[in-house]
Amino acid sequence: MQLPKFVRMVEVGPRDGLQNEKSMVPTAVKVELVDRLSDAGLTVVEAASFVSPKWVPQMGDSAEVLAGIARKPGVRYAALTPNLKGLEGALAARADEVAVFGAASESFSQKNINCSIAESLDRFAPVMEQAKAAGVPVRGYVSCVLGCPYEGEIAPRAVADVAERLFAMGCYEISLGDTIGTGTPTKAQLMIAAVAERVPVDKIAVHFHDTYGQALANILAALQMGVAVVDSSVAGLGGCPYAKGASGNVASEDVLYMLNGLGIETGVDLDKLIAAGAFISDAIGRPTASKVARARGCA
Amino acid sequence: MQLPKFVRMVEVGPRDGLQNEKSMVPTAVKVELVDRLSDAGLTVVEAASFVSPKWVPQMGDSAEVLAGIARKPGVRYAALTPNLKGLEGALAARADEVAVFGAASESFSQKNINCSIAESLDRFAPVMEQAKAAGVPVRGYVSCVLGCPYEGEIAPRAVADVAERLFAMGCYEISLGDTIGTGTPTKAQLMIAAVAERVPVDKIAVHFHDTYGQALANILAALQMGVAVVDSSVAGLGGCPYAKGASGNVASEDVLYMLNGLGIETGVDLDKLIAAGAFISDAIGRPTASKVARARGCA
Repeated sequence: MQLPKFVRMVEVGPRDGLQNEKSMVPTAVKVELVDRLSDAGLTVVEAASFVSPKWVPQMGDSAEVLAGIARKPGVRYAALTPNLKGLEGALAARADEVAVFGAASESFSQKNINCSIAESLDRFAPVMEQAKAAGVPVRGYVSCVLGCPYEGEIAPRAVADVAERLFAMGCYEISLGDTIGTGTPTKAQLMIAAVAERVPVDKIAVHFHDTYGQALANILAALQMGVAVVDSSVAGLGGCPYAKGASGNVASEDVLYMLNGLGIETGVDLDKLIAAGAFISDAIGRPTASKVARARGCA
Repeated sequence: MQLPKFVRMVEVGPRDGLQNEKSMVPTAVKVELVDRLSDAGLTVVEAASFVSPKWVPQMGDSAEVLAGIARKPGVRYAALTPNLKGLEGALAARADEVAVFGAASESFSQKNINCSIAESLDRFAPVMEQAKAAGVPVRGYVSCVLGCPYEGEIAPRAVADVAERLFAMGCYEISLGDTIGTGTPTKAQLMIAAVAERVPVDKIAVHFHDTYGQALANILAALQMGVAVVDSSVAGLGGCPYAKGASGNVASEDVLYMLNGLGIETGVDLDKLIAAGAFISDAIGRPTASKVARARGCA
């Protein structure tokens, strides 16, 4: 099997995970979680979101989180920034990188952020500009890359269009998100192939949800295409909002276990990662969604 | 991706699944489960085990189950037969095929059935002979193919040795079982490659447990090697005895969802399979381990 030698794991639990959890998590707990994740060897931790707290109250303490963490050299602490105000907050809080996002589905874009895909990207132009001026790298997310709750299947070309546009705007990396987790391996490969015609494959990351249990198979398929950046969420934080009781983000522990088994280096320590997952699962009072953590916990 | 056009799904839930569940399931429920599974389009359903009820009381009603089902033409109802007495019971109950089993790990063989691998295979010789005389095909299982709870990693050659021996004894198909679910895709491929040097790949089946969440990725890797027979268990029946709260057999619904997405034909209807899983999960009073079923159930 042709696989990358090294994979960069991008940890999204403290942001993409916790913002979708029902419970409000104390700032001190978030800080400890982020510190445990960087201590486990993760080099990119999405730790904050500067969205209006009216919309996402769970992330209202993002500045305090970034102020409280013990910054580890070599680790980038990232923040989601939907607009200029968000970017200003992120820069003031010394985020090392920021992120913007577009959908590959028109219906999702309309229903989710009330504008077309093209309009949503236009709105990011000033964010990109100011981030560049501040010397802060911007990551671009594309959602619904393998399915949309309103439209069903999404054409690979629609994904490639948005990815290309975000890349052209200056995003250093494009993270392709299977938001509803309906993707399967061949479709994932065809979608990645379409994107890779417009964006170099070493600038592509994958962000799979495990709602239908397909995430690890899809990640394997992506690795076989040369993708070497994988998003995941410790303890599988972030239940899927479209399916009650169903899981959302793929668990970092399970991704790392597979990568270790494949002989791919990551620099991440599985035991410390499992401990970080146990810490946050305890703190929010719900069982971990990581099968590796569950299997290990009872060994 | 090079993949088989058709995959035969072997449903092991009523036997390998239910015998590892704590609850005793009424015979009528087992009968309805088996009938629902054959109605969903599965052509091999492992429905019974003629092991001593002293050891596996859950399977004590196997003859009644096989007597009660509505036999569908084209469907083979299989039974586990560890010895001649078991084979006689299976033949009397009109099982369409039977199965014997060996471990790839000496320690597991010793601790599990109190004899060496070689001795365990010798004991199957008369079973093979009588099954052949009766015209009943025999399937061979190999356990611990990617790890052993006592020895850790298992050499691919050790798996190939047992598989070759079972095949030479007359087993029509060899099912390679990752009993503790620790396997990962590259290791799975190396193991399958070693076996395929001794047993034709079209006589190889894979039987993955999802204890560490790796089952679908491993199945994908096996399909890429040309394996076209996959064991699975509806609703993920059969908790792993080695890890409390952890899952065991990979859920048939999740396997079928992936195969459908890959464009591989199976002849199995996903909706009916999910309904069969919901039926047995209700009956035994535990949530399904299938992520597809959970996602669908709340859509």
